Amino acid sequence: MKKKFTVVAVTLLVTACNATQVSKVEVIEPSHPKNIIMIVGDGMGPAYTSAYRYFNDDPNTAEIEDTVFDRTLVGMSSTYPAPVSGYVTDSAAGATALSAGVKTYNGAIGVDVNKQPVETVLERAKSLGKKTGVVVTSQINHATPASFMAHNVERGNYNEIADSYIENYTNYDFVLGGGWKFFIREDRNLVTEFQDLGFQYIDEYAGLATLQKDKPVIGLFDEVGLPWALDDSDPSRLKTMTKAAIKHIENEQGFFMLVEASQVDWGGHSNDIAAAMGEMRDLAMTLEYLEEYVANHPDTLVVLTADHSTGGFTLGSDGKYSWLPEVLRNMQHSPSKIAEKLLDAEITQEYADELFSFTLTAEELAQLKEAKAPSQEEQQLDSKGNPYADTSANIQKKALYTAAKHIVDKRTITGWTTGAHTAIDVPVFAFGSQSERFNGLNTNTNIANTVFSLLGDKSK
Amino acid sequence: MKKKFTVVAVTLLVTACNATQVSKVEVIEPSHPKNIIMIVGDGMGPAYTSAYRYFNDDPNTAEIEDTVFDRTLVGMSSTYPAPVSGYVTDSAAGATALSAGVKTYNGAIGVDVNKQPVETVLERAKSLGKKTGVVVTSQINHATPASFMAHNVERGNYNEIADSYIENYTNYDFVLGGGWKFFIREDRNLVTEFQDLGFQYIDEYAGLATLQKDKPVIGLFDEVGLPWALDDSDPSRLKTMTKAAIKHIENEQGFFMLVEASQVDWGGHSNDIAAAMGEMRDLAMTLEYLEEYVANHPDTLVVLTADHSTGGFTLGSDGKYSWLPEVLRNMQHSPSKIAEKLLDAEITQEYADELFSFTLTAEELAQLKEAKAPSQEEQQLDSKGNPYADTSANIQKKALYTAAKHIVDKRTITGWTTGAHTAIDVPVFAFGSQSERFNGLNTNTNIANTVFSLLGDKSK
Repeated sequence: MKKKFTVVAVTLLVTACNATQVSKVEVIEPSHPKNIIMIVGDGMGPAYTSAYRYFNDDPNTAEIEDTVFDRTLVGMSSTYPAPVSGYVTDSAAGATALSAGVKTYNGAIGVDVNKQPVETVLERAKSLGKKTGVVVTSQINHATPASFMAHNVERGNYNEIADSYIENYTNYDFVLGGGWKFFIREDRNLVTEFQDLGFQYIDEYAGLATLQKDKPVIGLFDEVGLPWALDDSDPSRLKTMTKAAIKHIENEQGFFMLVEASQVDWGGHSNDIAAAMGEMRDLAMTLEYLEEYVANHPDTLVVLTADHSTGGFTLGSDGKYSWLPEVLRNMQHSPSKIAEKLLDAEITQEYADELFSFTLTAEELAQLKEAKAPSQEEQQLDSKGNPYADTSANIQKKALYTAAKHIVDKRTITGWTTGAHTAIDVPVFAFGSQSERFNGLNTNTNIANTVFSLLGDKSK
Repeated sequence: MKKKFTVVAVTLLVTACNATQVSKVEVIEPSHPKNIIMIVGDGMGPAYTSAYRYFNDDPNTAEIEDTVFDRTLVGMSSTYPAPVSGYVTDSAAGATALSAGVKTYNGAIGVDVNKQPVETVLERAKSLGKKTGVVVTSQINHATPASFMAHNVERGNYNEIADSYIENYTNYDFVLGGGWKFFIREDRNLVTEFQDLGFQYIDEYAGLATLQKDKPVIGLFDEVGLPWALDDSDPSRLKTMTKAAIKHIENEQGFFMLVEASQVDWGGHSNDIAAAMGEMRDLAMTLEYLEEYVANHPDTLVVLTADHSTGGFTLGSDGKYSWLPEVLRNMQHSPSKIAEKLLDAEITQEYADELFSFTLTAEELAQLKEAKAPSQEEQQLDSKGNPYADTSANIQKKALYTAAKHIVDKRTITGWTTGAHTAIDVPVFAFGSQSERFNGLNTNTNIANTVFSLLGDKSK
């Protein structure tokens, strides 16, 4: 067992040259942290972490409270993929850059521009004798976790990626997220295969309390991704899963873990600020827990960044010098869930106010009612004027969702420019052992390469 | 005369505890840099510095070239003003935070929320015997320079602010920018007053070569702000002015200088990516010059940040995973200048292609022609349907400007959400003496307070 090192600083004062010089003697900690936790806030560009500060602000105090992001920012990262994909990355190329240190094409899962597999930091950690964990709120075979766990030429090959997890099962000690659809299929039941290989399987959060420490774990908690944090039975499910994972994979050789706040990105794609802030709150709570963990386990490194920013989200829009997150702080349901509930009930002032947790204006209420009653044309034609096969109820629900988001955007003065990603640099946060290695501007591949160097070579 | 200190690092290797410990003995440089240069990229949120990397990318090389911003990033800064103004700052409160370390209300010039004057870093530097310089591309009495040089309850009091420069003339050794309109007025000619107080006055860049070192300088090069960098006779006029300023104010007691790339913000307000990138290029060249200067004068600190981000600018929009700055790289005229030229000439394919420096499509050409021929209604009514006093030529020019920007936005896939500011955190860049003091997340007031502490107290 390696001994822990602590940083010792001795300060000497030397007076010379008409000024005070300070000499420091510092014993530097070892260059390989025992535990490394990489966190990806998918789609979490700088507007999201800025917004979280104002969302989190306590209106009863004069100051604006610092967030865990504020305490731990060390730099930024550029996110551009390989030249073949231009300047705007997708989550697959972005995650492969972060997992393997290689710029690749959009869609690539753990493969380079020549479609050849590239070693990932999770695989390196495993080969060095560390335990590994993966905790995400998307399906576990979605682009980001897949780029750490698998190699595939195309992110859309969800079943192939899931199948490959069985082939490489010895790489994984603890995997939590969603994905029944891909793991319990008509052609193949990967869950029973995992169980046959010695894995414990759970399908609800309560199962986390039942796990034995000495057997690997796979937990799938929903069909595809988990519910929005705002709607989930456990609104801090990322924190809950992260705590369970650490408890399970802590060991003398150390561990590597990937944690992904997957659905910040989905909030961005949907241009849904209420859902996105719910995801940010869950991520912040996870990070606060990890701050405590690192205080007690200083041989642990935590590094958090985003693969890209999503939605062209801006704090302020339409010429107004204002962003008003007040209504977001009280919301108990996502706009999507509100739409679902309004579809099944009469839209009354009382019920709408209850769902939004604020008092709607007559105009806002009218917008919801209008959305629920689409014209005959809208029911029959899509946006391009082509006949549309969707059911009327689905169209109504989408229109209600759009209306609910529109109400929240207007209330908060939130802007969006796209349903896709943008090329803005993203923030980088780090704390614990060797966290200063991420100071300044990184590019995404540097982050992986720094983690590789902190893990060390196989030969060592 | 103070002696220069150099950083000396002695490395000792000590073997212990089964691992290699490294002990560093470091002589730390003095805590007060001789020269401090603060730079404000007005409105320059993280999208602008990210965009500049891709704008600056050499398409003939496989890699994406690092920019001076990439080399010097140290952290970020939040920008929120005093609570009375919410979460989105204007340039006055933003600059007062950066100049005086005080969160204040939007519109405040060097005064706190109680409208009381607060000492600025420029004033402190002067009181400590340093020379001072101010170099901006706006009028010199615009919000940012004014917040370092003056105290006024309202940024819009341009004449009062200009008048106060006369009262406090001993604070300034070298001031360059625009502003004839405010300094040569019917009621008062401040230029002759400055001359009577011993200042050298110049009104064209060529005058920079004629200056005597031992007399203070005021240079005004345009009516209000300078032309866009893209249109100026000197497209790197910020660099030119900065070099001239340093040459003039270098002295044994050191200097404090404010440099502002004022018009990045104006590009943002106009939602004009071509103009904004021209301003960013001028700022980058200025910063590259300062990198060289600091290499030769390591007792100098350079710190650059933005007061806020403007326009809700996003790299990518409308669902496309792409941002295409290619056409921007060749543009020789701002869209505003193009509109002006098209107003005075027949819009032909050849002439439009020449002005834009790329080949317009038939559709783009048609958009320009349509913009030049507004309908009778548009000429007579404003957007609210009220009678409009503007001249027909002005309306045509505005419509042409809007059309030209629209063409460039579509070509580049650029998004905007507002003509105002947003609350996103902004990047912080620093190099030279004590630059590590800005690492991590700052708030704008911390930046001023760090500069105050680096300047030192009056008593010392």
